[in-house]
Amino acid sequence: MKNENSKTNDEAQIRAMIEGRIKAIRDKDVNALLSNHAANVAAFDLINPLQYTGADTVGERTENWLSSYQGSIGYEIRDLEITTGETLAFCHYVYHVTGTLMDGGKVSMWARATVCLLKTDGKWMIVHEHQSVPFDVETGKASLDLKPQDS
Amino acid sequence: MKNENSKTNDEAQIRAMIEGRIKAIRDKDVNALLSNHAANVAAFDLINPLQYTGADTVGERTENWLSSYQGSIGYEIRDLEITTGETLAFCHYVYHVTGTLMDGGKVSMWARATVCLLKTDGKWMIVHEHQSVPFDVETGKASLDLKPQDS
Repeated sequence: MKNENSKTNDEAQIRAMIEGRIKAIRDKDVNALLSNHAANVAAFDLINPLQYTGADTVGERTENWLSSYQGSIGYEIRDLEITTGETLAFCHYVYHVTGTLMDGGKVSMWARATVCLLKTDGKWMIVHEHQSVPFDVETGKASLDLKPQDS
Repeated sequence: MKNENSKTNDEAQIRAMIEGRIKAIRDKDVNALLSNHAANVAAFDLINPLQYTGADTVGERTENWLSSYQGSIGYEIRDLEITTGETLAFCHYVYHVTGTLMDGGKVSMWARATVCLLKTDGKWMIVHEHQSVPFDVETGKASLDLKPQDS
């Protein structure tokens, strides 16, 4: 059975990591955003393709994403739930991205994220992440204008 | 450190559970599909809304989903990866759903699934699931016609 102190500590570490990632998105700091990805991370991303693997690809896509915005990106998360074990953990949350794209388009979108982690040499690393919006079955469109349950 | 035998055993249990769920979908067996959901499961589903909670809601939605198909539903999965710890585990895979809807529409769609589990009284239970397709950033449409990397 896991010691309660180490459990609290692990949760705090992962929470700090997520908060660091939020700051890194707002600061458009690609290196900081990649510092917690395992080399062979398996990604299910918000936009095409269906799946891809590897921190290098995550890095390229993150760079493209951050540079598609004029100025800073607004990013806040809600409903973060973290579950930790001895050497693995998972967490999920919803997030709100806001900003202005290079082409002038305005973004204000809520999406979902699930992050799965392994503790390697004392550090929590992301081995899998899944980000998405649901779709509207009537229109076949991605639902880019949803809001969390009680907002 | 986790015993290798129990790790293998946990993986086998989760693999069997996933295989049971595949069979239950093909058989349209709602009860079997709900037998591994924790009461307070947090779901990020393929279609709207953004998020919901609870096995009861999962049950209603599963029933609606299964009954939206004429006859049987084709369901196969690929790239299943399972990671287990002492009392928690996560897995992810891509899946292919095929069939004919009640309105005559044909479905042949690949989607992604992430499933997070806790071991409760010796049984692995789903506490979080995330299913989705990505979207096409050019059209804003859900990408319902993608295929896995090497198929």
